[in-house]
Amino acid sequence: MNKDIFVKLLQERRYKSVKDVLDVMNAVDIASLLGEFDDKELALAFRLIPKEKAADVFANMESSLQSVLVEALSEKELKEILNDLYMDDTVDLLEELPANLVTRILDASGPKERETINKLLNYPEDSAGSIMTTEYVDLKPYLTVGQALAHIKKTGIHKETIYTCYVIQQRKLLGIVSAKDLMTTDDNVLIEDIMETEIISVSTLTDKEDVAHQLRKYDLLALPVLDTDGLLVGIVTFDDAMDVMVEEATEDITKMAAVSPSEKTYFEVSAWEHAKRRIPWLLVLMFSSIITGTIITRYEDAFAAIPLLVSFIPMLMDTGGNCGSQSSTLIIRGIALNQVTFHDFFRVIWKEFRVSLIVGVVLAVSNGLRIYLTYQRAGMAVVIALSLVATVISAKLLGCILPMCAKKIGLDPALMASPLITTIVDASSIIIYFFIATKVFHL
Amino acid sequence: MNKDIFVKLLQERRYKSVKDVLDVMNAVDIASLLGEFDDKELALAFRLIPKEKAADVFANMESSLQSVLVEALSEKELKEILNDLYMDDTVDLLEELPANLVTRILDASGPKERETINKLLNYPEDSAGSIMTTEYVDLKPYLTVGQALAHIKKTGIHKETIYTCYVIQQRKLLGIVSAKDLMTTDDNVLIEDIMETEIISVSTLTDKEDVAHQLRKYDLLALPVLDTDGLLVGIVTFDDAMDVMVEEATEDITKMAAVSPSEKTYFEVSAWEHAKRRIPWLLVLMFSSIITGTIITRYEDAFAAIPLLVSFIPMLMDTGGNCGSQSSTLIIRGIALNQVTFHDFFRVIWKEFRVSLIVGVVLAVSNGLRIYLTYQRAGMAVVIALSLVATVISAKLLGCILPMCAKKIGLDPALMASPLITTIVDASSIIIYFFIATKVFHL
Repeated sequence: MNKDIFVKLLQERRYKSVKDVLDVMNAVDIASLLGEFDDKELALAFRLIPKEKAADVFANMESSLQSVLVEALSEKELKEILNDLYMDDTVDLLEELPANLVTRILDASGPKERETINKLLNYPEDSAGSIMTTEYVDLKPYLTVGQALAHIKKTGIHKETIYTCYVIQQRKLLGIVSAKDLMTTDDNVLIEDIMETEIISVSTLTDKEDVAHQLRKYDLLALPVLDTDGLLVGIVTFDDAMDVMVEEATEDITKMAAVSPSEKTYFEVSAWEHAKRRIPWLLVLMFSSIITGTIITRYEDAFAAIPLLVSFIPMLMDTGGNCGSQSSTLIIRGIALNQVTFHDFFRVIWKEFRVSLIVGVVLAVSNGLRIYLTYQRAGMAVVIALSLVATVISAKLLGCILPMCAKKIGLDPALMASPLITTIVDASSIIIYFFIATKVFHL
Repeated sequence: MNKDIFVKLLQERRYKSVKDVLDVMNAVDIASLLGEFDDKELALAFRLIPKEKAADVFANMESSLQSVLVEALSEKELKEILNDLYMDDTVDLLEELPANLVTRILDASGPKERETINKLLNYPEDSAGSIMTTEYVDLKPYLTVGQALAHIKKTGIHKETIYTCYVIQQRKLLGIVSAKDLMTTDDNVLIEDIMETEIISVSTLTDKEDVAHQLRKYDLLALPVLDTDGLLVGIVTFDDAMDVMVEEATEDITKMAAVSPSEKTYFEVSAWEHAKRRIPWLLVLMFSSIITGTIITRYEDAFAAIPLLVSFIPMLMDTGGNCGSQSSTLIIRGIALNQVTFHDFFRVIWKEFRVSLIVGVVLAVSNGLRIYLTYQRAGMAVVIALSLVATVISAKLLGCILPMCAKKIGLDPALMASPLITTIVDASSIIIYFFIATKVFHL
């Protein structure tokens, strides 16, 4: 649906047609269409969305647009939407809203919802508690499949998922029954006879990244969240897990490029904010790289005697940096996907050592040959070849050791990526290079 | 479950206990436990897995272990497993197996399955067709909800998902009914009256990454796959989409570090293979960075006159590289998530220009001041400050332009990441630096 056509229909007050269009459109697409409207058009268009779709559209809008609507809508309209919103979407909304609008929402919620919201808001950011929903289907063990299906028919419509049902007695989670089991089992079988009692669950404080990993590992639609007493307090559904996985990958990628991550998209972040997220890292790295410069000046005599030495500095530094980044990136990603742990420390080092030997020799031979053929200087070829081998080995070892150590001491391994590795490897490659050069040329 | 205990039980032939343990364990956990066994133990242990769980365990095993089992199991055992495997898992298996074992699998499959398998194997890698399954629940529009539920009870058990049902007439997809709709609607309502006719679908040739994006965008459990005639040929389920998203992120991250991506994990790839995936990029980058070295030698006289000039080279090169990587990484990720497109070309450039002005000035002032205070040389401070501003701006512009252009001409934007950007920016920052230095110092 093209925005211009839509705005035209609105301006010409052809509300019936607008309604018809909104009626056949998907809620997600309506939400992204509304994203292109100005504030006044937005409230007008939103009111034309069919009632049963409004909450779904609202949940899919960007937080800045949600704010505009919360401000523009009447209390009655707001109540209707909140009624249809799932608990986790309401909490997401509140986390992004300015304080005065938060009050509006809480006022429009019933006392019971308010209590749940406050509890959910108190879970630490990035925890399972902060992304879970409290709306799930609960069954009793003594029900028959037929009774359970009747119960779901009556109560299921307002639950975020009805495909995983939780068998509960005194809030304790006894087992799990899938809708598939219910739909393919005879009506008079007891729930306790078909429920799965080997339950995979997380606690309210489990990191949301781990929650996503569990969901993916076991191909689950939802994962129960237990409190510290082992009682069921909510569930995390697969769609939230998908979002978490994409967000976490984005966060890692961003950090690996020395940028403080943001949950907003590129264009949502202002130029000032972009600068703020990049400058601290650049300053640290810039001042660190001065060390390399200082090391170079110590060898002033060497490159005064053989000026050609200077011309290989960028090549050595870049190659070292690239080799280190390759290793650190593979290890950082391996750690993020639980494929590499600190237990593998020596296994990783041994592997990277063998890889770096192969890589080092190939680079050394090809570049050594090139230098010999270009300059006819065997000494220089040997210096570069030896420096390359040593640089590649040290860069790759640093590249794999640093992320694993970071993880071990509780730092984010993603910080040990290309920029930092490059800066450290720069210094070491210069030292290696001039050490070998002064030995070979007796400087 | 600890592997050692398990092996002990096996060796002491306490098969009853082993069976009991396997009975309560989750299929995914059994699969990863089996991963630690040697080939003989593996076949022995696998035979003790409860029949109804065996296929699920098999589908979750690494492909190297699957090969071992396909070789070790009897034709009858193999048939049983293949019978319970979903079509997409069978195809995954075949794609990884050596040719002689592929024949074993095809021999053990029925003629109808063989036909389906061959069709699925022919879809291009990375297409929706290659990851879809052909087992879904199909309903007729004229059925009542009660009849539909009875149909599912009879046929649903062997379908990969029964939660999204497809309403079909003459293989044409008319609409979609969710299990939730079926479970919460009266039994005598007609399917055609409750089916959703605004269908989100993909074609067999759609890139699997786009499929995953669609599933995530619309929070769907499954997505129908249509052939070129618009007929339904299969579905892609959310669990496959999750895997695709994680794989694609890994692929991007790996490419961004100048490593050819692999679908295997870090440890599954041999040292030789690791080296092979890294060397080509390193060679290209190494020989490219020689250009920078050559540029430096052109200014031999300049740094002979003022040796201090050389010591700032690493700092300028690193800062330029880091600035360029920051921009390129954010744009590459934005493109991958469909948040940035080529249409935003000038919007991105304008944003990065403003960001780089702020960043450049901050870096220039802080480093200029430091140099002035350290060396008491105003001229040098000015040269470095000006060089920094110019380097930061050119690096950030290059960093955002290259990935967008790559996307436009059909290259993978992830190739325009840190390593390549760094190499290009190195040369440009050196040129900027010496240009400014020769002007200021009249060299």
